[in-house]
Amino acid sequence: MKQKINYDQMSINYLKALAIDMINKAGSGHPGIVLGAAPIIYTLYKNHLNFSTTDPNWINRDRFVMSAGHGSALLYAMLYMAGFNITLDDLKNFRRAHSKTPGHPEYGVTSGVDMTTGPLGQGIATAVGMALGSKINASKFILPNDKKIFGSNVKKPVIDYKVYVLCGDGDLMEGISYEAASLAGHLGLNNLIVLYDSNDICLDGETNHTFSENVLDRFKAMGWNTEFVKNGEDINAIDRAINRAKASNKPTIIEVKTIIGAGTSLAGTNKVHGSVLGDAETKKLKRLLNVSEDTFYVPDDILNHVRQSISKRYRKYFYNWDDSYKKYVDLKYSGDYNLFNNILNSRFTYDLTRLNWDFLDNEKDALRDMNGKIMQKISETVTTLIGGSADVASSTKTYLYQKPDVTKDNYNGRNIWFGVREHAMAAIMNGLALAGFRPFGSTFLSFADYQKPAIRLSSLMNLPVIYIYTHDSINIGQDGPTHQPIEQLAMLRSIPNLRVFRPADAHELVGCWHEILNHSYPSCLVLSRNKTETLPSTKAENVKYGAYQVLSDPNKNDGILIATGSEVQVAIQVVLSLYKEYGIRCHVVSMPSMELFLEQSKEYQESILPKNVKKIVIEAGSSFGWHRFVDDPKYLITVDKFGISGTKDEVLDYCDFTFEKIKNRVIELLELSKQEETVEIIDDI
Amino acid sequence: MKQKINYDQMSINYLKALAIDMINKAGSGHPGIVLGAAPIIYTLYKNHLNFSTTDPNWINRDRFVMSAGHGSALLYAMLYMAGFNITLDDLKNFRRAHSKTPGHPEYGVTSGVDMTTGPLGQGIATAVGMALGSKINASKFILPNDKKIFGSNVKKPVIDYKVYVLCGDGDLMEGISYEAASLAGHLGLNNLIVLYDSNDICLDGETNHTFSENVLDRFKAMGWNTEFVKNGEDINAIDRAINRAKASNKPTIIEVKTIIGAGTSLAGTNKVHGSVLGDAETKKLKRLLNVSEDTFYVPDDILNHVRQSISKRYRKYFYNWDDSYKKYVDLKYSGDYNLFNNILNSRFTYDLTRLNWDFLDNEKDALRDMNGKIMQKISETVTTLIGGSADVASSTKTYLYQKPDVTKDNYNGRNIWFGVREHAMAAIMNGLALAGFRPFGSTFLSFADYQKPAIRLSSLMNLPVIYIYTHDSINIGQDGPTHQPIEQLAMLRSIPNLRVFRPADAHELVGCWHEILNHSYPSCLVLSRNKTETLPSTKAENVKYGAYQVLSDPNKNDGILIATGSEVQVAIQVVLSLYKEYGIRCHVVSMPSMELFLEQSKEYQESILPKNVKKIVIEAGSSFGWHRFVDDPKYLITVDKFGISGTKDEVLDYCDFTFEKIKNRVIELLELSKQEETVEIIDDI
Repeated sequence: MKQKINYDQMSINYLKALAIDMINKAGSGHPGIVLGAAPIIYTLYKNHLNFSTTDPNWINRDRFVMSAGHGSALLYAMLYMAGFNITLDDLKNFRRAHSKTPGHPEYGVTSGVDMTTGPLGQGIATAVGMALGSKINASKFILPNDKKIFGSNVKKPVIDYKVYVLCGDGDLMEGISYEAASLAGHLGLNNLIVLYDSNDICLDGETNHTFSENVLDRFKAMGWNTEFVKNGEDINAIDRAINRAKASNKPTIIEVKTIIGAGTSLAGTNKVHGSVLGDAETKKLKRLLNVSEDTFYVPDDILNHVRQSISKRYRKYFYNWDDSYKKYVDLKYSGDYNLFNNILNSRFTYDLTRLNWDFLDNEKDALRDMNGKIMQKISETVTTLIGGSADVASSTKTYLYQKPDVTKDNYNGRNIWFGVREHAMAAIMNGLALAGFRPFGSTFLSFADYQKPAIRLSSLMNLPVIYIYTHDSINIGQDGPTHQPIEQLAMLRSIPNLRVFRPADAHELVGCWHEILNHSYPSCLVLSRNKTETLPSTKAENVKYGAYQVLSDPNKNDGILIATGSEVQVAIQVVLSLYKEYGIRCHVVSMPSMELFLEQSKEYQESILPKNVKKIVIEAGSSFGWHRFVDDPKYLITVDKFGISGTKDEVLDYCDFTFEKIKNRVIELLELSKQEETVEIIDDI
Repeated sequence: MKQKINYDQMSINYLKALAIDMINKAGSGHPGIVLGAAPIIYTLYKNHLNFSTTDPNWINRDRFVMSAGHGSALLYAMLYMAGFNITLDDLKNFRRAHSKTPGHPEYGVTSGVDMTTGPLGQGIATAVGMALGSKINASKFILPNDKKIFGSNVKKPVIDYKVYVLCGDGDLMEGISYEAASLAGHLGLNNLIVLYDSNDICLDGETNHTFSENVLDRFKAMGWNTEFVKNGEDINAIDRAINRAKASNKPTIIEVKTIIGAGTSLAGTNKVHGSVLGDAETKKLKRLLNVSEDTFYVPDDILNHVRQSISKRYRKYFYNWDDSYKKYVDLKYSGDYNLFNNILNSRFTYDLTRLNWDFLDNEKDALRDMNGKIMQKISETVTTLIGGSADVASSTKTYLYQKPDVTKDNYNGRNIWFGVREHAMAAIMNGLALAGFRPFGSTFLSFADYQKPAIRLSSLMNLPVIYIYTHDSINIGQDGPTHQPIEQLAMLRSIPNLRVFRPADAHELVGCWHEILNHSYPSCLVLSRNKTETLPSTKAENVKYGAYQVLSDPNKNDGILIATGSEVQVAIQVVLSLYKEYGIRCHVVSMPSMELFLEQSKEYQESILPKNVKKIVIEAGSSFGWHRFVDDPKYLITVDKFGISGTKDEVLDYCDFTFEKIKNRVIELLELSKQEETVEIIDDI
């Protein structure tokens, strides 16, 4: 009697074989996780994950984040088997340039890949942001309780997707995953389900060399539901655990005990984590798995089994949703429809410069305070603007006072309390951006350091995330060198595809917001804590050029002071005082964004910073990155050492950054000598 | 009948009053923690912390880390009352320039301050490193079991100090504290006692807006002993909890429930966290505390009570220890005495260049592999060298194969398994350096991002920490843009007081180690994963200049190629090939350390990079920071965009960084045109 084929088991075996073929062909990759976690991924895609291969960007699809990004081969092989727009040829091009199958999953490159992963901990933390985004959307867009139209009496959210994560020990050892998980527990994100591939092995050896905590107990302490599957090959047990997770009112972590590199002679050791198996081992493995020795081959009946099971499951759900959604759209329910559309398209244009910002002229506040006022106004217009602070909103002034908080009991808010979790805040912002929002997050500039890995991912994925940093220089004084940024502007400006804005005053600040909100790039808004005058010659509409003249003379140019932020005001005062005392006419260039300026035409750049005129840079931060604008490093009036704790004046003096010291440096650099008579003559003219 | 004075209570009250006076006078600071946590600090200093005010740097003193660095006023006031070398005038100068009492505690500035804190989470994580350092030392330096000499039959470590930490909610929300605590639990560091000032308030409001986990349960899950004190004013309860902690075989966290700003009208709210109390409120508070209204005043009997209680307690312990220690030193126990001395002084000089490194000439390995071999040899000589990797030792090759691991059961090792915890690794290295070691920690260069806040603290404290980074450029290929560093070298080079080394080959690598080990600054060693030839013209002894010529012609200089790391070899090949094809003589300057080069005399710098010669930079990383060496940005052959996943050649091609493309760029920049005849003529000479 012919044995009945166990289609699920054989599908998993072919899934493994396919991914192993990919790694063998590429000559690099990670077989360990493929062989250990295939049953988990298979169970998830076949029985749970809602998606549509015909509309892979379906807004209400469940998201899947491969936080253990080195498991990319497994993911791509699964996407192929599930029927996504990935061919066997794509799989054969694994890890090749410009393929759909890069070494780690990349957002925007592959259908079915919901974010870029690789740096450990980022995936799970960003997934928290996605899950939160789903919850907030669910609270905003609700199908009205009308059985006639929607065929149901139940109020149903239009968007209510779940977010699934596959992670390993490494993800859970990273601090960022703890930060994000703690907040997920606090916010009760029960649409977040983490599948923990627990194989007791890390790159260097057995996990018990360094990681012996009780992970599930830890998550329990953080308000999570926990599940344990002792045999990672038991897909029924995995299935049941996911079902319980879906029913829980908390986020869930499912620890699934697996064997890394299962079925190979190196199974259960770190040696199989990142080393290609090779021919002999692969042959042996395929025999064990009872699959064909042919490479990149899946029998039709297996493929059909997988694809049909999946489409049967999700088709009904998808079309039901689509039907309701169309009705929702047709009826253009309330003002929320615009918001919904924005969320759907993650895009819009707002001409902020046309709004009335006159009131800012009369403000004598610190820029952070003016920014607070601007944000209140913007938040009325830009309804996707949502965010918070890493527990310094009282100081960064980014709280939206007219708007409710996002809480476990009511997600329909605009203010998020991120806690003292700068890094997770950044990753969660990435997740919120992936969910269609315009997220902002604020902290002090010196703590941008905590966020670097997540900022880099914002830039890599080109997400419209807005980092707001106040307390932007040594000017803050007494809190001392740990709180005084020096090299942080350089760090941010050096990141590809990130735009850093440091406005001089309220006018430029409005211009910065206008630029930021009309582009999809990630950005940093760097603001002073100190009182700043609104200047008569700054212009919001000039921010788009990155740099422009705020003080000039068409007939005379004795030197150019380039400044940013609160130093623009200082530069103007220096120039005015030099005119009075020496009769010379220097220009002042405000450079709210170095990146935007460098994107301008050569002609424009040359017109602002002509050759053969001495140029001097004034910025209360590191000189690193400024040399391109001056002829010699001596023309950089910057701060290249750590500050000290003292009053503002003491600190400025210590850093040679008082008005007098700056002015004297400029006098020295321009080689001016006091000529009382000359000045008097000029004054007479 | 006169009421008996409760001296402990009155000491605490005066401690509070003193710290409040400091904050009032400075006009800024954090009264909240002062009033909430004074009883904790007082109990710790009076009854538990072993130290010597006459020898504040006593090697076996218990360490205290104010992880909640904003509580500095409380710490300074306590140090004054305990009899450290801090005067009332010092307290009056709180937060003034060059005082002993800066805004946040600073290492090296104040007797009794064991590390610089302020950025949350760093203190507790660094304390884990200190505690580990104490344990390792305890395992190495043991008083022999000789009753005649040591008055005891018990084998006693010479160094066995405990590390106490005061932290708040903010510290515990930070991911780095989780990472470090997880490792502390794993390593069973029972000499680590964390006092958790649990006041349910964070900067922006009630902690329960964002932080609702069960902290003690979480720590229990990580292998910690946990204690709870429900009334933070009950110093007996605090005392008993610390006693239990000292007896535990696990690290301990003691959650002490306190009231932020206790005794003021803003008690229990975030408003009292960082706002000066002012006169009226202070007057009211002092009346409540039953202390004198005079500012900066502590009655003699109170001061005597505190100082005498403390000195009575620790004097005996200190002199006993000192006695044993002198005997230990006199007897110069085994070879460990040298190590002990090194630990004690955190200083030594080793002329590594005199060792025989000839074998490296025959190696054709990647630099990371050669570095592994070099480290094996160095570790024999430099016995304080200790460290590990963030779970990528198999890839960074920094494991010391001849040396044992540091484990819970035997701390007497040299290899530390840090786990996938880059950030905590960096902070723990800071702690190990504070404990007298020369710590190293390795990961991939792109993950330096995770460590930025702790690297900055290495630099601020000037600790001899060695960051080793491999996989240093797009050359790594297939792992893709998340793993390909671009802006990381710029990030590191922009940090004040950090020295970044990127050696070209094994010769320079030895020179880098020589420089690093003979200085006390923090450093980064950036290494290629790819195969690197050992070059004939590189020299270990030239690394100290930061940059030097590796290819030159005394009579002719048609241009200079500046390169670092594996690009030096490329530059040499380009120059040789240009000579062959065009007959021109370009020089090649290897720049293993930009920082060291910029520390050289102007004359030396000018001799290596003379004006009026075209200079071209070749580095497989961001151009950011390189402009100072060239006349125009076009002379920078660098990588200013994210890479892609592909084979090494594909990635180099995508980044215009293949040998041919670099060579053609140089040809273009030097404006060379093929003149076959000319070349032949020159070749004939």
